[in-house]
Amino acid sequence: MSLYSQYFYSDEVNELLSDTQTIAEMLRVEGVLAIAQAEQGIIPTDLAETIVSCCRTDFIDIEKLKTDLIAGGNAAIPLVKQLTRIVKNNDVEASKYVHLGATSQDIVDTATVLQIQEFMIWLDERLDILSQLLINLTKKHRQTIMVGRTLLQQARPITFGLKTALWLQSIERTKARIKSVEDRILVVQLSGAVGSGNAFLPKEVQQLVAEILELNFAFSWQSARDNMAEWACVLGILVGSIGKIAKDISLLMQTEIAELLEGAGEGKGGSSTMPHKRNPAICAAILANTNRLPHLVATILSSMPQEHERSAGLWHSEWEVVSEIMMLTGGTVERTIELLEGLEVNERQMSINLELTRGLIYTENVSLALASKMGKTQAHELIEKASKQAIAQQRHLKEILAEMFVDLPNLDKLFMPEHAIGNSLDIIDEILDNLSNH
Amino acid sequence: MSLYSQYFYSDEVNELLSDTQTIAEMLRVEGVLAIAQAEQGIIPTDLAETIVSCCRTDFIDIEKLKTDLIAGGNAAIPLVKQLTRIVKNNDVEASKYVHLGATSQDIVDTATVLQIQEFMIWLDERLDILSQLLINLTKKHRQTIMVGRTLLQQARPITFGLKTALWLQSIERTKARIKSVEDRILVVQLSGAVGSGNAFLPKEVQQLVAEILELNFAFSWQSARDNMAEWACVLGILVGSIGKIAKDISLLMQTEIAELLEGAGEGKGGSSTMPHKRNPAICAAILANTNRLPHLVATILSSMPQEHERSAGLWHSEWEVVSEIMMLTGGTVERTIELLEGLEVNERQMSINLELTRGLIYTENVSLALASKMGKTQAHELIEKASKQAIAQQRHLKEILAEMFVDLPNLDKLFMPEHAIGNSLDIIDEILDNLSNH
Amino acid sequence: MSLYSQYFYSDEVNELLSDTQTIAEMLRVEGVLAIAQAEQGIIPTDLAETIVSCCRTDFIDIEKLKTDLIAGGNAAIPLVKQLTRIVKNNDVEASKYVHLGATSQDIVDTATVLQIQEFMIWLDERLDILSQLLINLTKKHRQTIMVGRTLLQQARPITFGLKTALWLQSIERTKARIKSVEDRILVVQLSGAVGSGNAFLPKEVQQLVAEILELNFAFSWQSARDNMAEWACVLGILVGSIGKIAKDISLLMQTEIAELLEGAGEGKGGSSTMPHKRNPAICAAILANTNRLPHLVATILSSMPQEHERSAGLWHSEWEVVSEIMMLTGGTVERTIELLEGLEVNERQMSINLELTRGLIYTENVSLALASKMGKTQAHELIEKASKQAIAQQRHLKEILAEMFVDLPNLDKLFMPEHAIGNSLDIIDEILDNLSNH
Amino acid sequence: MSLYSQYFYSDEVNELLSDTQTIAEMLRVEGVLAIAQAEQGIIPTDLAETIVSCCRTDFIDIEKLKTDLIAGGNAAIPLVKQLTRIVKNNDVEASKYVHLGATSQDIVDTATVLQIQEFMIWLDERLDILSQLLINLTKKHRQTIMVGRTLLQQARPITFGLKTALWLQSIERTKARIKSVEDRILVVQLSGAVGSGNAFLPKEVQQLVAEILELNFAFSWQSARDNMAEWACVLGILVGSIGKIAKDISLLMQTEIAELLEGAGEGKGGSSTMPHKRNPAICAAILANTNRLPHLVATILSSMPQEHERSAGLWHSEWEVVSEIMMLTGGTVERTIELLEGLEVNERQMSINLELTRGLIYTENVSLALASKMGKTQAHELIEKASKQAIAQQRHLKEILAEMFVDLPNLDKLFMPEHAIGNSLDIIDEILDNLSNH
Repeated sequence: MSLYSQYFYSDEVNELLSDTQTIAEMLRVEGVLAIAQAEQGIIPTDLAETIVSCCRTDFIDIEKLKTDLIAGGNAAIPLVKQLTRIVKNNDVEASKYVHLGATSQDIVDTATVLQIQEFMIWLDERLDILSQLLINLTKKHRQTIMVGRTLLQQARPITFGLKTALWLQSIERTKARIKSVEDRILVVQLSGAVGSGNAFLPKEVQQLVAEILELNFAFSWQSARDNMAEWACVLGILVGSIGKIAKDISLLMQTEIAELLEGAGEGKGGSSTMPHKRNPAICAAILANTNRLPHLVATILSSMPQEHERSAGLWHSEWEVVSEIMMLTGGTVERTIELLEGLEVNERQMSINLELTRGLIYTENVSLALASKMGKTQAHELIEKASKQAIAQQRHLKEILAEMFVDLPNLDKLFMPEHAIGNSLDIIDEILDNLSNH
Repeated sequence: MSLYSQYFYSDEVNELLSDTQTIAEMLRVEGVLAIAQAEQGIIPTDLAETIVSCCRTDFIDIEKLKTDLIAGGNAAIPLVKQLTRIVKNNDVEASKYVHLGATSQDIVDTATVLQIQEFMIWLDERLDILSQLLINLTKKHRQTIMVGRTLLQQARPITFGLKTALWLQSIERTKARIKSVEDRILVVQLSGAVGSGNAFLPKEVQQLVAEILELNFAFSWQSARDNMAEWACVLGILVGSIGKIAKDISLLMQTEIAELLEGAGEGKGGSSTMPHKRNPAICAAILANTNRLPHLVATILSSMPQEHERSAGLWHSEWEVVSEIMMLTGGTVERTIELLEGLEVNERQMSINLELTRGLIYTENVSLALASKMGKTQAHELIEKASKQAIAQQRHLKEILAEMFVDLPNLDKLFMPEHAIGNSLDIIDEILDNLSNH
Repeated sequence: MSLYSQYFYSDEVNELLSDTQTIAEMLRVEGVLAIAQAEQGIIPTDLAETIVSCCRTDFIDIEKLKTDLIAGGNAAIPLVKQLTRIVKNNDVEASKYVHLGATSQDIVDTATVLQIQEFMIWLDERLDILSQLLINLTKKHRQTIMVGRTLLQQARPITFGLKTALWLQSIERTKARIKSVEDRILVVQLSGAVGSGNAFLPKEVQQLVAEILELNFAFSWQSARDNMAEWACVLGILVGSIGKIAKDISLLMQTEIAELLEGAGEGKGGSSTMPHKRNPAICAAILANTNRLPHLVATILSSMPQEHERSAGLWHSEWEVVSEIMMLTGGTVERTIELLEGLEVNERQMSINLELTRGLIYTENVSLALASKMGKTQAHELIEKASKQAIAQQRHLKEILAEMFVDLPNLDKLFMPEHAIGNSLDIIDEILDNLSNH
Repeated sequence: MSLYSQYFYSDEVNELLSDTQTIAEMLRVEGVLAIAQAEQGIIPTDLAETIVSCCRTDFIDIEKLKTDLIAGGNAAIPLVKQLTRIVKNNDVEASKYVHLGATSQDIVDTATVLQIQEFMIWLDERLDILSQLLINLTKKHRQTIMVGRTLLQQARPITFGLKTALWLQSIERTKARIKSVEDRILVVQLSGAVGSGNAFLPKEVQQLVAEILELNFAFSWQSARDNMAEWACVLGILVGSIGKIAKDISLLMQTEIAELLEGAGEGKGGSSTMPHKRNPAICAAILANTNRLPHLVATILSSMPQEHERSAGLWHSEWEVVSEIMMLTGGTVERTIELLEGLEVNERQMSINLELTRGLIYTENVSLALASKMGKTQAHELIEKASKQAIAQQRHLKEILAEMFVDLPNLDKLFMPEHAIGNSLDIIDEILDNLSNH
């Protein structure tokens, strides 16, 4: 791992996807295969047990494995060699049954799926925490009025709770997405050299292995990689949604806007030369990952047209990238939890910013009110004229409109932020209600 | 459209996503909005009807619209202007209610979703045809034995039906995928300037608009674009799966392999200088699209971190790319149907190729048979030795093994392709059964 | 072209790369080939002249060509057929010499290079204009002090001229880049079916064709596409540099910052519902293109590993994408010229923003001054303490420091923006000097 | 590093870009900065020497640094803290001058450039070896006739030397490319917080630092990242060119083609279940990297639009990716050298494959010969007819043509491969000559 293993990544996820853990999952598959074959009467039970007892990472020389794998081109080949030797040292007879009927890709792919399975559990928990943080923010800031911005311009008021509620929805949709893809992704690969199965891999064995590993049964997907691609996509979408959150927060942290702040820990976001700055250091990590993920997802999509029954290169290009996608996603989610836990909301500054345009952000409000009287176009033109005058004279739009004898009984009300937030509160309530009903 | 509009694309899909059709969908949204507002008593019904009667593409000056949109930065702004003018020419009063309460993005996004909806219908039909072609191939070639290949090397026999059955499964999974994302993707966008709704856009109106358009209701996703990203991903995965089919076919069409041929129409795949060639011209189009799609999907993922309540640029970068993804997918699917409809299978050449290695592709078969006698490692070593001898002497492996006094009663059987295809037939049958049970 | 052909693109570049223009370049290659072969005595001169006289786009049925190309898989095959027929109608003998010895790819590739050549000329002129606009801005705002920002936080003062001078440098580097790649990119492709040349394509003919077309001679690059990739990269880098300019401008246009404005034309950047807004509508187009380009460049890189002497698909995936890269680059450059021509600089707002932090942006200045007295760390700590106090009390840092009896004779000077801009002016002068010396 | 650190990567390059080496380069910059400032009279020489003596990686607690950097968001901040403390322990006075006037990005960026510089030296040497291997292959196989293939179909003969000569040219062009970008890429970054320089970083210091580090001087490129993008592009192009070589070799290694073989080392390319296979295990590693690189290059292009004077996220997204690009390039080049060193050429199989089509690959030859008699179109049609007959009757084209009384005196000659290789030999000679004249 690089210098930045704790900045862009999550220690826990790095651990889940470490070399040792990868080897452990591969050994687990070999062990379970032996057990399933024993249960189906294909190999003797005691020998299967011997095999299982040898499937331990501390028996494996990982450095040697890393060198040896170059010749064969994947990690399963030297691992099976080492494992067979270890088993042989215990029981020569048992060594005949190691990896029986299986092919390297069975082991590599199923181990990858097992790592995805573990990561999925980790992710589910973290996304629940993330959702809860967003729920809390939404509840707390249901009525915290701020300006809504389109094309980086102040547009009209919303509440901060509306913003976080919509963030929340995007995370909830990813949670639904994960649920809906789970069955397609958590599948066993166990079909032998060319995906046709063989006498040692009858369907019963495949199913039993799947069952023990809590995976779904599937026919060969050795060169049909849509499940891997789908998993990459789901995570890419999640990170994109989170990137939007970090983008918003980093923009709202700008000195000139100052509505939000990353939590100030010891030295957090400090600059080496400008002690007063509160840099969006967590946002920067999240946004960095956000910039990388789409390209990693595309790598997996580019690796889909795999040749024949096993690819010469495209399968190989998945290995590190699928892990990297999960590791960067892990880091992104972990950073985001920290970001939201520490987020400081400056409500006073939000109020100040609402007044920055001297009433111009209420133009749509006024315009719509006028529209029912004089029609949209005319209303639009009148407001445009008044706005220009307000800008030129640096005066409040309300004053200008009053001078123009605009006949609106509730003019004052139209310039109150709480009357300009549309259905923000209802939307928030419904979003939160829908969640609690789930 | 480019010179290659009929090669990489589908005329039908190009038509669905044409400028005129885009404008038509935008106008449809404006019309339905007026109707829904009328039904909710927000605007007078007769005026709404006037608006609807004006929502016709033949009233719109598209060339002018293309020039005018530069100033505002999206197509809805000049369209609403033209529409308002048209309505005004009919009824000044009605013109006050055009686009009432809505924002440009409401119109642009909902129109895009409507185009996705139409494309989805088109695609569903085409994927059914594609599946049926694969089912037919699978049934026909259930027992057509060919060699399976891993890392571009002959490995051991399968049947061509197994290959096509696994292709079929990947298409079926995409069909399931489309079903599972439909609800998240076919949603209305109708929340006004900053996503908060307003007095003219109460929830009742939003719901009614959604209902009339046969879309789901949704709160603002103006800057939460995970649904667009998901749609891009689903299509990217589909094209990847199809790319795998075209990759296989193009490789099997190689002069030296010659197991498959693209159908020979008038001049199909001809070379300008080599009249005898049967180029994989359809495969080339599909593979070209396959190379482009991952990058277009990534573009949509890269456009996700949209700022605040509407982005300055990232939203804009979606417009053409979402269309392009659907257009290239359309072309890819259409070409694939043509490819499979015309596909010629050279069973004789498949048989010849099975004999090319003089028995070496049966080594796994023999190896597994020997393994239960002498253990995997020893069996492996014996076979390796015999294979080397067979290669060196250019003789058949069976002869060599016979000379080595390898004690296997069913040696002949082990070298019969029909005994080396594992569970191919059972797998095929189950895949086809599962489909017909759906 | 799409609805947005005038927003994301340049009409002039679209024209250069239109279907008709593509056909015209292909015909030009065919004509020049005949001439060169005549000059080398390979074909009779009068027949070559007949061929040339037939190489006119108005003789070609482009719609038919678009349909016919599907069979052969590229545009040259049906074009040569049509051309041969046209020539035959004029002179049967001459028709025997059309496209003699050449292969489709020779024509398609050389025509592409000719379009690149034309686009390069267009681009050179536009980049000169762009540079000049940046030079003018730099000169005009050499001393216009504004705050420099790091990680979206106010850091310390620079001048706006320094910012534009550094923008300028990135454009100048691209101009140097184009110069340095030109020779590798503007090369003829003319090597026959498998790149080996033949009796009708001796080196003399290849060289003569190159010379007439003002291209460099090259051996076959039919499946060695590094030159295409390099061109894609150069344009991708250019658009990235321009994207940085648009990003800065759009951020500086934010309501709360308001230091820059896109020029206000009739209706420019207007919002359909908020008449007062000055949206960064041009920046949005540029940033949209900026988001798309990297992925298109990657498509070309992904298409590099082309099989054998001509690829089945990867070559095909270049065609539209190379054009699209040039078209989007064209639009990006054109929009940027408009953006800079109309750019409004609000110097007053720049001054106001400099005071926003009540002196905090001068901390580095003060810190460095103190450092030589008390060491960096202690200085840093003192400033940090003072800054916190200033923030908490909402007072000016200078006051706080005065109260702390910080012993700096030139304290006032340290808080003057003109003393906090480092070497900005010298840097600007040197950048401008270096340019004028070129 | 992952399990596959020796498969996809180069140990030497991994070492060059390791954490320790990164820290070492950063310390080197800090040391050289102090020396340059001393030489310019800005800090006392003895104190600068103290600083230099402390710039040793073994003094640094890298694990602590990895944790500490999270707060500040880059590695320079905690490194400067640790360094300052170490210097302070030696000489309190000296500690005041550590990192004087510099900003974190100065250190991070310059250290990255120094790593690029080291990698460039490594790469230059390796590319020379690679070129030499290709030169040797080209010389050896100048006249080794094989079939050329277009769209995966046999087309007409070339020599293997022509193929390798064209591979060679693409590598040579990358070498030229590296030369031409070197000056733009190997530049110092040393401009202080906002790129404006300051009293401690006058131009003399910047120049001196550059000179000592053997870099070019440059003004701030803190948010103008075209040089990083250009370096990424150059490597992406190189890997693409190499990918083409591996693609060709892997295809030529197919069982049915068998013209090339990866060298057989102990267990090389062995399959765990099929002992006879000679898998393209090295090609697979190269092709895997080839699939990944374009997307990593695009990541760097996507990170170009960096905000203001330093980006919040996009700069951060470069760090690991620039390294990854170099590491994967390193592995790719190293694997390719191994691949070419061990490459086995099966000339006999090349001859056999030339006869596979029973003369059809000579159709262009015959066609061109006939064309001068009867015109291209008629010749083409005659050949087409004869070819179809040859295919249908499984007879040699020459026989068919003889039966058709085709009047070509040198018919036999037209079917000799050595007369069908066009100008292959001349091209090879010229390519080799040009190289040796350099």
